Amino acid sequence: MTKIAIVYFSGYGHTEKLAAAVEAGAASEPGARVKTFRIDANGDLPDGALEDIGGHDAIVYGSPTYMGGVAWQFKKFADASSKIWFVQGWKDKIAAGFTNSASVNGDKGATISWLMTFAMQHGQIWVGTGILPSNRKEHGPQHVNWTAGMSGLLAVSPSDASPEEAPRAGDLETARLFGRRIAVQTALRAQAQHERPREPARV
Amino acid sequence: MTKIAIVYFSGYGHTEKLAAAVEAGAASEPGARVKTFRIDANGDLPDGALEDIGGHDAIVYGSPTYMGGVAWQFKKFADASSKIWFVQGWKDKIAAGFTNSASVNGDKGATISWLMTFAMQHGQIWVGTGILPSNRKEHGPQHVNWTAGMSGLLAVSPSDASPEEAPRAGDLETARLFGRRIAVQTALRAQAQHERPREPARV
Amino acid sequence: MTKIAIVYFSGYGHTEKLAAAVEAGAASEPGARVKTFRIDANGDLPDGALEDIGGHDAIVYGSPTYMGGVAWQFKKFADASSKIWFVQGWKDKIAAGFTNSASVNGDKGATISWLMTFAMQHGQIWVGTGILPSNRKEHGPQHVNWTAGMSGLLAVSPSDASPEEAPRAGDLETARLFGRRIAVQTALRAQAQHERPREPARV
Amino acid sequence: MTKIAIVYFSGYGHTEKLAAAVEAGAASEPGARVKTFRIDANGDLPDGALEDIGGHDAIVYGSPTYMGGVAWQFKKFADASSKIWFVQGWKDKIAAGFTNSASVNGDKGATISWLMTFAMQHGQIWVGTGILPSNRKEHGPQHVNWTAGMSGLLAVSPSDASPEEAPRAGDLETARLFGRRIAVQTALRAQAQHERPREPARV
Repeated sequence: MTKIAIVYFSGYGHTEKLAAAVEAGAASEPGARVKTFRIDANGDLPDGALEDIGGHDAIVYGSPTYMGGVAWQFKKFADASSKIWFVQGWKDKIAAGFTNSASVNGDKGATISWLMTFAMQHGQIWVGTGILPSNRKEHGPQHVNWTAGMSGLLAVSPSDASPEEAPRAGDLETARLFGRRIAVQTALRAQAQHERPREPARV
Repeated sequence: MTKIAIVYFSGYGHTEKLAAAVEAGAASEPGARVKTFRIDANGDLPDGALEDIGGHDAIVYGSPTYMGGVAWQFKKFADASSKIWFVQGWKDKIAAGFTNSASVNGDKGATISWLMTFAMQHGQIWVGTGILPSNRKEHGPQHVNWTAGMSGLLAVSPSDASPEEAPRAGDLETARLFGRRIAVQTALRAQAQHERPREPARV
Repeated sequence: MTKIAIVYFSGYGHTEKLAAAVEAGAASEPGARVKTFRIDANGDLPDGALEDIGGHDAIVYGSPTYMGGVAWQFKKFADASSKIWFVQGWKDKIAAGFTNSASVNGDKGATISWLMTFAMQHGQIWVGTGILPSNRKEHGPQHVNWTAGMSGLLAVSPSDASPEEAPRAGDLETARLFGRRIAVQTALRAQAQHERPREPARV
Repeated sequence: MTKIAIVYFSGYGHTEKLAAAVEAGAASEPGARVKTFRIDANGDLPDGALEDIGGHDAIVYGSPTYMGGVAWQFKKFADASSKIWFVQGWKDKIAAGFTNSASVNGDKGATISWLMTFAMQHGQIWVGTGILPSNRKEHGPQHVNWTAGMSGLLAVSPSDASPEEAPRAGDLETARLFGRRIAVQTALRAQAQHERPREPARV
């Protein structure tokens, strides 16, 4: 069995919808078990959640893009994870990331770029979407990877769209494909690592 | 008079169209004189161009986004400018940037982020678009700053669109507004600096 | 008179020491008045601080680098500033940034890169250090800009050094020079802008 | 057998020395075969090299940091690889990166950040150093990961140091450890992937 944790913050529900689609995609892979951890409005997780997360083979990160980066609540979680950093407790676990904001572009890429930096601090292995973009004239938000997120998933929820309306079909399908890809990649590693001990953290 | 240089590379003509719109916007500001420098397919500029560029009050950088960054031809120009870096010859000049690629998002932001880094190496002063995005459901490529580029201009030319077709109306209008903003900001500084000597480079 | 605000978070006192050196450098410029705003451990500023900050000509940002980015407390302030973003209330104000962490490099650059992104969201004008690095064999932490921060100030406080011990002489001198540069650049703009109205935000 | 390609550009020999240390570390892992590809001064590789590179399980990228990014010669290689991007020919291959510059920090992080972006465009899986930094007062360039590169290897060659003198002992040891880690991670995947077909590229 492959265990995948999705840790995310959602301010208005759009990112939560995205997280659910990533979860569904990952869970569709045989042998994958997915658990989601929603960071609350104060930037906290339930007691014991950090330890629980550490028991997974992959940790997927999600946050809306606010002011060009992750929401402060997500960063509070990230800073709290520094006690795990000191012992490299999440080393070699698969990592991936997704974000959502109102504009088609904006600084969503900066959010994913930082999520990669964060995962690298933890010694994780980063997996992007691996999905070629839909970038011809005919393409729109109903197509897969219309936003061309390669490092991570870049979803769009226009500023006047409710979580019922957005992210839209293309983003949600991309999220499912991405979730499945994460599960496949995690299974590949977990299977191999089973037969070989993890590299020790340097102390 | 305020002197503005636009240095750009264009692979297929889309970025050149964008450069022309930035130029038109800048030139529309009274007292502004704009000169464009097109980097050739081998990454070169005419003899003397680097010195000519250095005689301007602002240097605006433009390149398509290829593989998540500026075209290699632009980078060749950037590397050639390192001889100016050693004496900080472009210090305190206004800088700004624009890019174009096929997808609505992709890694265009990474290109602009690097252009900022490059301009900071030169000790320049960076000016973004300062234009709020068009990010409601009704908005599309015909609206101003639909891509929400704040650090720089992010234009879209679908992969099957000719330079006649793209960048589209919204991007071109954004380019004109951005060009005008650059000219205004450059004039502000040039006017004040006239009465005060430039800080010396540290040697 | 030129008014400069320094907004920062400091976890253990090292970044505060850096903020004080930037402040001293800025205040050494004739006509400059500097005010510091320290974000508290809960990510909050005193009531009315956001409005107070908005009355300045420059806003300088400072944070330690934690897990490859600004401290969550700083991000909480950044997210709270989004209400100002909507009206582009800080547009055209000078911006600059500084950070501190235990390693000579680490991901300090990612912190400054994001601070630039943040300032660009606000439509500000970014000023880097403009100080060439000290990068010969003989150089060490006692020299100016040993870390070669060009986009912003990158200070080093080894993990076992108290705020009395670090940041060290070179970083503090860099901070003073940077502070003075910010004041000079702000004065240049403020003087010119006095005679010309600010561009209106697009609504 | 696990096959690892190292593709790099070196301007003055410092980055080549680093590449050799990464190579030695990778080759020390039983079952690993490493091949290096040096990009020439014109940004070219020998005929057939792109296809040869594609036959490896991991592709490691190296370049000096010039003007805040990879050398233009490296970018020329990256742009040439776009024909492989169209068919996602390097999808799922392990990727990693290293860089060198004169300053202890500078914008080396920006180079690694872009290398990650580039590898993600290719659908690769990114592996960082996974080595905790040496960041106490007693530490210096003779210690492992003194520069605290987590996303990739950040080496330092002072501006007046020959390739015989730098990168120094700590960087070279970090390079060897990093090389070995890359080989271990590649072997893990290659072993598992042997029993499972690669995900098809989306067309």
